[in-house]
Amino acid sequence: MSTRVPQGVSAEVFEDAKARMRAVVGRRWVIDEESQGLASYYDIYSPASEMTTAPSAAVAPANVEELQRVVVIAHELGIPLWTTSAGKNYAYGGPAPREAGMVVLDLKRMNRVLEVDTESAYAVVEPGVSYFQLYEHLQKNKIPLWIDCAAPGWGSVLGNASERGVGYTPYGDHWMMQCGLEVMLADGTLFRTGMGAMENSNTWNLFKYGYGPYLDGIFSQSNFGIITKMGIWLMPEPPGHMPFMITLPREDDLHMATDILRPLKINMVIPNGVLTPDLIWESATKVPRSKYYTGKGPMPDSARKKMAKDLDMGQWNVIAGLYGPQPIIDANWGVIRDAFAKIPGAKFYTGDDRPGDVSWEYRKKLMRGEPNLTEFNLMNWVGGGGHVNFSPISPTTGDDAVKQYEMIRSRAHEYGFDYMGEFAVGWREMHHIFMLMFNRTDEAETKRAYELFSLLIDEAAAEGYGEYRTNLHYMDHIAKTYGYNDDALWKLHRRIKRALDPKGILSPGKQGIWPLES
Amino acid sequence: MSTRVPQGVSAEVFEDAKARMRAVVGRRWVIDEESQGLASYYDIYSPASEMTTAPSAAVAPANVEELQRVVVIAHELGIPLWTTSAGKNYAYGGPAPREAGMVVLDLKRMNRVLEVDTESAYAVVEPGVSYFQLYEHLQKNKIPLWIDCAAPGWGSVLGNASERGVGYTPYGDHWMMQCGLEVMLADGTLFRTGMGAMENSNTWNLFKYGYGPYLDGIFSQSNFGIITKMGIWLMPEPPGHMPFMITLPREDDLHMATDILRPLKINMVIPNGVLTPDLIWESATKVPRSKYYTGKGPMPDSARKKMAKDLDMGQWNVIAGLYGPQPIIDANWGVIRDAFAKIPGAKFYTGDDRPGDVSWEYRKKLMRGEPNLTEFNLMNWVGGGGHVNFSPISPTTGDDAVKQYEMIRSRAHEYGFDYMGEFAVGWREMHHIFMLMFNRTDEAETKRAYELFSLLIDEAAAEGYGEYRTNLHYMDHIAKTYGYNDDALWKLHRRIKRALDPKGILSPGKQGIWPLES
Repeated sequence: MSTRVPQGVSAEVFEDAKARMRAVVGRRWVIDEESQGLASYYDIYSPASEMTTAPSAAVAPANVEELQRVVVIAHELGIPLWTTSAGKNYAYGGPAPREAGMVVLDLKRMNRVLEVDTESAYAVVEPGVSYFQLYEHLQKNKIPLWIDCAAPGWGSVLGNASERGVGYTPYGDHWMMQCGLEVMLADGTLFRTGMGAMENSNTWNLFKYGYGPYLDGIFSQSNFGIITKMGIWLMPEPPGHMPFMITLPREDDLHMATDILRPLKINMVIPNGVLTPDLIWESATKVPRSKYYTGKGPMPDSARKKMAKDLDMGQWNVIAGLYGPQPIIDANWGVIRDAFAKIPGAKFYTGDDRPGDVSWEYRKKLMRGEPNLTEFNLMNWVGGGGHVNFSPISPTTGDDAVKQYEMIRSRAHEYGFDYMGEFAVGWREMHHIFMLMFNRTDEAETKRAYELFSLLIDEAAAEGYGEYRTNLHYMDHIAKTYGYNDDALWKLHRRIKRALDPKGILSPGKQGIWPLES
Repeated sequence: MSTRVPQGVSAEVFEDAKARMRAVVGRRWVIDEESQGLASYYDIYSPASEMTTAPSAAVAPANVEELQRVVVIAHELGIPLWTTSAGKNYAYGGPAPREAGMVVLDLKRMNRVLEVDTESAYAVVEPGVSYFQLYEHLQKNKIPLWIDCAAPGWGSVLGNASERGVGYTPYGDHWMMQCGLEVMLADGTLFRTGMGAMENSNTWNLFKYGYGPYLDGIFSQSNFGIITKMGIWLMPEPPGHMPFMITLPREDDLHMATDILRPLKINMVIPNGVLTPDLIWESATKVPRSKYYTGKGPMPDSARKKMAKDLDMGQWNVIAGLYGPQPIIDANWGVIRDAFAKIPGAKFYTGDDRPGDVSWEYRKKLMRGEPNLTEFNLMNWVGGGGHVNFSPISPTTGDDAVKQYEMIRSRAHEYGFDYMGEFAVGWREMHHIFMLMFNRTDEAETKRAYELFSLLIDEAAAEGYGEYRTNLHYMDHIAKTYGYNDDALWKLHRRIKRALDPKGILSPGKQGIWPLES
């Protein structure tokens, strides 16, 4: 009998639940402490012990019918189910649940590409479909559509979109490209959103809004239901495309670069999200830190300068792409070049420039929708596996970029860590991603990482910057920073949660939404 | 004492409610049967008596604080409030409530432009701000940003977006361009969505999604809350723009035109929504029907042909625009011309072609965000004022366009009405708008119009076409066509409605959501 059980559930009820779920999905698809493989659901990258979020079991239904029967059992017995699918989500908590003892609901076996419409350019996928799988499906069938993937190619198309992740082509706002959901509620009810609510609809995956309230958004970054199918728009292969990188030699070039980018993005001169990784992020996929510095604390300037020179990198590196017929690419590239030429020392690279540059190669793949795993090379920077992403949103201005950069860098250095970050400019806002890398085998360093992250949340909030997504351990903390008018929004989230899942069995605590709080 | 009261409310309670509301907003801002002006809230254009939806009163608070006190009174006393603001919404029911006796909550006095950010290109508006007002605000302050307006310039920026109306520039998907809401619930609770839930947020109107479930959509076409503020993205004035019209001589050119448009729209060669009005729609702003035909029943082919020749119009007329630097406009226009040149007899017009053409003039204004009221000339086509829009969504294919056109036209003719319609191609779908014009002073004709509309709903649904929006009288009927899995979606809507508005006081019955049904 397992020693670990969900909170508030007796060992007997839990054994009963597992037995009944095994009768639905088959013995091997209910994994617990006594089976092989439960550790694959642990979060072994966060700055906290993996046991604080270790599940008691995982259950993996093969299809919607099995899922429904599993959910009904969980609902009846009060078993908390934490949903995950393909991918690892390392920097935000892996597949682990919010709280130790919860049961992971793993949808990886529901992995059919249900439809691809070449003419209207969309696919319908189940939760377990990975970027690799969808890409291969299109390649194998010679369908001239591109996917837009997250950096980790093993990620779930549906899962990443529903967490509002972003990608690298002009279709990089994954949630915006989603069209049409099928969702299961905690009591097993199944419904379809938008036009899909019409029995024989021919526009479920063509028109997002349908008739009446537009619900899809409430099932993103949410624990209100389980998404079982999603339509996702795909980009027709363009007649041409041109990736580019502009290296900027000085740290304070960030200010001017950001102000240059704002109008280029708002006016869609640059159609995809513009990434501006710093020197360390963009070097860390190519070399380990130890090649340039083996001391304690953040890498000193002298070592940074040498690395920049050796690798021909900027302190900031502006990366984006152009897409379309050649005359349009040429016209836009002229505007972009003229704008960045104002930054002294800016160097311009396109397409086949920089042969053999590992980071440029995988960036180019991402910008043409070719999934890969190269960004995981970052893990070799310090070694020891620990990493967690701090991801505030800010206005796209030089002032904001520099303020955030200085705030985070100086705290990171104070706590003994490198600043490894990138800015991703969307349409009117920037995501700033600070990747906090630490040696998880060093207990003191891990503790410092945990504390630094908490401090950054509060300091960012004090300046009006909020995070768009976070690791399990900070979900409650960040929810509290969204406290306008006496926590009015989170009170509303909980009110909806109780209406849709009164027993609170679906992903309790996700994004700080605990069902039973008022 | 008023004779008309809300359902289930006694005359005494109603008088008490009005008295208490008058104490909040001032005497003149609670209008009832005994005051002047209640008739301005009647729906005098629908194919049903205006008395079937005549309100018992209207209340117009001046600001959020007054609104909150009014809502709290209504909540306490169980008074149903039907929200409206600026504009008339003629083809969908005017400002009238779903059911006779409800109280209109008129937000027209809450009409401040709260903020315009020139650099990040957005505005924050209250519900009563009209397109005219926002346009004039930008003009007066020499702010180089465009609005995107609905055809009626007196409409509410916030109201149209929250009903998911569409416009004519590249920012024509109004709900997509919305960013950040402030909403009041039925109990007076006020909250802000997205990044606005952070006390001192600097990105409320820059980043739509925030952290946690993305709620905004559930307050569109909805009765879950009252939107009190909205951020709306504005388009930076482009360096150039070129409106164009392509007239197509034959009815069956619709098939080829639609298949030509699909890839041009999906690939964003054409950045704004493409309208394809038929001959009658595009002529009716210029001439009355009686100039060409005074008989009964639909206009015969011979008269249509003569009118097309006189006015130099096509049977279909493809209207859209290009925006940006000249080389990009030129490149895209080349692609478009080559594509449409395959249709024999297609004629191409741009910019200053067609001097003196009334419809071309207002179309050009709409495509550069200049609000006007010219489209109301359509009302002169048959006279007698009655009109109602039937608005199904379909895939963007020639087969679907022709199938819908033939289905609706033949039924319209059978019932004795002209087909007056347009197709609006968005990204991957088309809105088809059939404007049913009838003489409302003719009782039999009005009755036939009512019946025709009902029949069209059922016949469209049988083929998988659903409406995106509708007139008061058809809200329930259309909701029932979205009945997948035993009405699962509408059951969910009602579940959310009861959680957020348990007494059911906000716009009961809107889009078929009646609070007290299970």
